[in-house]
Amino acid sequence: MSLPRDALAALAAALGEDQIRVGAAVPVRNHADSAGLPPCAPAALLLPRSTAEVSEALAICHRFSLPVVVQGGLTGLAGGAHPIAGEIALSLERMNGIEDIDPVGRTMTVLAGTPLEVIQERAAEAGLLYGVDLGARGSCTIGGNVATNAGGVQVLRYGMTRRNVLGLEAVLPDGRIVSSLVKLIKNNAGYDWTQLLIGSEGTLGVVTRVLLALQPAVPSLHTALCSVAGVPQALRVLDRLEARLPAGLLAFEAMWPDYLAAAEAHAGQAPPFAPGPALTLLVEAALPAGEAYADLFLAALAALAEEGLLEDVLVAQSSRERARFWAYREASSEFYRGLTAGLHFDISVPLAAMAEAADLLHDRIGKSASGATLILFGHIADGNLHLSIHPAEGAGFEGLAEVVFGIVQRVEGSISAEHGIGVLKRPYLGYSRSDAELALMRTLKQAIDPLGILNRGRILA
Amino acid sequence: MSLPRDALAALAAALGEDQIRVGAAVPVRNHADSAGLPPCAPAALLLPRSTAEVSEALAICHRFSLPVVVQGGLTGLAGGAHPIAGEIALSLERMNGIEDIDPVGRTMTVLAGTPLEVIQERAAEAGLLYGVDLGARGSCTIGGNVATNAGGVQVLRYGMTRRNVLGLEAVLPDGRIVSSLVKLIKNNAGYDWTQLLIGSEGTLGVVTRVLLALQPAVPSLHTALCSVAGVPQALRVLDRLEARLPAGLLAFEAMWPDYLAAAEAHAGQAPPFAPGPALTLLVEAALPAGEAYADLFLAALAALAEEGLLEDVLVAQSSRERARFWAYREASSEFYRGLTAGLHFDISVPLAAMAEAADLLHDRIGKSASGATLILFGHIADGNLHLSIHPAEGAGFEGLAEVVFGIVQRVEGSISAEHGIGVLKRPYLGYSRSDAELALMRTLKQAIDPLGILNRGRILA
Repeated sequence: MSLPRDALAALAAALGEDQIRVGAAVPVRNHADSAGLPPCAPAALLLPRSTAEVSEALAICHRFSLPVVVQGGLTGLAGGAHPIAGEIALSLERMNGIEDIDPVGRTMTVLAGTPLEVIQERAAEAGLLYGVDLGARGSCTIGGNVATNAGGVQVLRYGMTRRNVLGLEAVLPDGRIVSSLVKLIKNNAGYDWTQLLIGSEGTLGVVTRVLLALQPAVPSLHTALCSVAGVPQALRVLDRLEARLPAGLLAFEAMWPDYLAAAEAHAGQAPPFAPGPALTLLVEAALPAGEAYADLFLAALAALAEEGLLEDVLVAQSSRERARFWAYREASSEFYRGLTAGLHFDISVPLAAMAEAADLLHDRIGKSASGATLILFGHIADGNLHLSIHPAEGAGFEGLAEVVFGIVQRVEGSISAEHGIGVLKRPYLGYSRSDAELALMRTLKQAIDPLGILNRGRILA
Repeated sequence: MSLPRDALAALAAALGEDQIRVGAAVPVRNHADSAGLPPCAPAALLLPRSTAEVSEALAICHRFSLPVVVQGGLTGLAGGAHPIAGEIALSLERMNGIEDIDPVGRTMTVLAGTPLEVIQERAAEAGLLYGVDLGARGSCTIGGNVATNAGGVQVLRYGMTRRNVLGLEAVLPDGRIVSSLVKLIKNNAGYDWTQLLIGSEGTLGVVTRVLLALQPAVPSLHTALCSVAGVPQALRVLDRLEARLPAGLLAFEAMWPDYLAAAEAHAGQAPPFAPGPALTLLVEAALPAGEAYADLFLAALAALAEEGLLEDVLVAQSSRERARFWAYREASSEFYRGLTAGLHFDISVPLAAMAEAADLLHDRIGKSASGATLILFGHIADGNLHLSIHPAEGAGFEGLAEVVFGIVQRVEGSISAEHGIGVLKRPYLGYSRSDAELALMRTLKQAIDPLGILNRGRILA
């Protein structure tokens, strides 16, 4: 599909020739996000440098009823930023930078195209901390984090992106700019429309600026690998540690035996415990400096070991050892490459149903006759399980999705804990949402984007 | 205004005669909330006992285009639940009770009409804690807390109501029931419509059930009164305490000299420090049991005193002494009665502008020729200032609002930190929100309540 000549001319006039690419001039990078879908060249690529330019570009697309896909760091796994034939890609990559750090109110104002890692680094330079961290930190952008309400490995302590956002500036599908960038923790002055945009995957507006809440830096990391007899024991360990180190826990990650087997086979990591336990936990606490707190961490683990809840414990004695412990958890990205056709799921289940859900997944997929390999790990404290299924030749997402999402539905979980719905999981949204909820979502989409030009087909059909 | 006979008959058939009161049979209690507006009898009072009855009642009101005001504990200070002539009051008081506590996932499912205090008590019985606490705990209901995104004295530690809500069931203005009561911390499966309802003051839907996140109980309270030289010093104290007791702080309340003078004059409380300091802080930390943590609290205060940041410190040595310290802060409700015509404001300002805002308020109101008395206190860590202005005879809300909200606008604060907009602050919403934001709010209201029957005139005209 080619664009109307008038529309192209209007876009060129609004943005300048250098901010538009058409046809073969669109970089291959912008043909896909990270969902693994077949690449698709957008009809054009827009590279606005300011909120005003985003506004003008959207107003023009709205006038011509042209569909637009919004792109950030292109690290999404659900196809939210993956072009559909005929769409214009609007990339925020030129809106990159930190505009303000307020050390008193502990806030940071950033442009939407700024990579997460830059935000983390600049917060640290100011003696502060940004609460969200995830594997894609080097390439994902804060705008994408907001659009997908990104989670990651520190949700236990700092919550998801939603909790770390104090305000937004965004451009609505018709080009109108809305902004609430006030440095307030409490603000009950009318509807908090920013909450609706967070997690809406770019379907209701294009986030252009973000006001982030920063946290006091917590200097000392204490890290341990623990072996436990199963999920119920892991949850009791979590309970005890939270009681003894209130809000001190930063990460509480679980790895099932199939996960550690894959880490050994494909990343050459010898398992930490022999014989391998039913569940291996990576526990990390961030505490103030000083021996008093270090003692509290060790005493908490010792009490749990004495009680028999922990079968074995390894405490990192150096930052190098800490890195070695984390390497297990981060091996997932590495050994994905060593296995063909991995299909990844990102589900959440109620904590009380986690043991049941893990058993069901192993029974129905891991031990199925299809020869599929199930690799299970996750942010267990948040009820968030990541599954990587390496199916026998020929098996596809559809068949496995029916099985996985059927289990999710049975335990009243979510088909997407943190990656979002995008286009990939759209057909399955009914597993997690009622018809009345879907109707309300459509009402909201229709009200804000009546022409349906923005990220069409993501989340809702 | 009398109701159409057909509508009344339909409501009686749907709810049963005993769930409707008309005319003089409407209790006086339901003629007003706590905003101080002239009482107004609603055209009828509906007392549904179930979500299905709320749904039927709203569907009928929708069919007849009858305006409805939603009532909970009637403790609101902005007129959100105060009847406007001709409105039907829908009270949630018969939907009262706790339906489920999940100790593993730490959740509680409650009916909307349940008082906050009952929730706190039942959480405590289960060895857990509900994170929101406020003065009206005995009579306010969780549905009203959700509708107003209630804050209170523990926002520093647990956030506002929004952060403590995992899910909602609600009835839309046309009677449709929407429900998301899944026990998940992470759920990025489509728009989180519950976030839009939280804080919308009953204008978009009637909350009928709430799924709350509970917290681990933290047994030991450590409380101190501190004197500091001013706001900048208070904020530095806050910074240091947060660094030494991460997430340990529960309350960090500030009282200006005018506040303590009122507490002495009207509640007979001798000031804690002589001579009275520029600012008196009430600091409370909730920590695990044991001497190690008690020592950390004392050491943190001692270091601040040594540094000169704290001019004086009193540490509560018993629960009785703790109650005496808190009596200063809670005197506000008591001495309100001793002063005539108090006008109350609930604003928030960026922390970096708090000293400036407090000075401006004192200059323009407290020292004005009008003879007004300004009493200033607040949850200083959240940027939330409560003002109680006792004007000279004849001065009204309007004139003072212009002054207070003018200062709010100048420092980019909010005209309502936690009490909401209701009808009382509706004319001033433009001090905190842009035209584009107001237009977006109207778009959302129009999409969900096209007939404008639900809490009409609250927040938006």
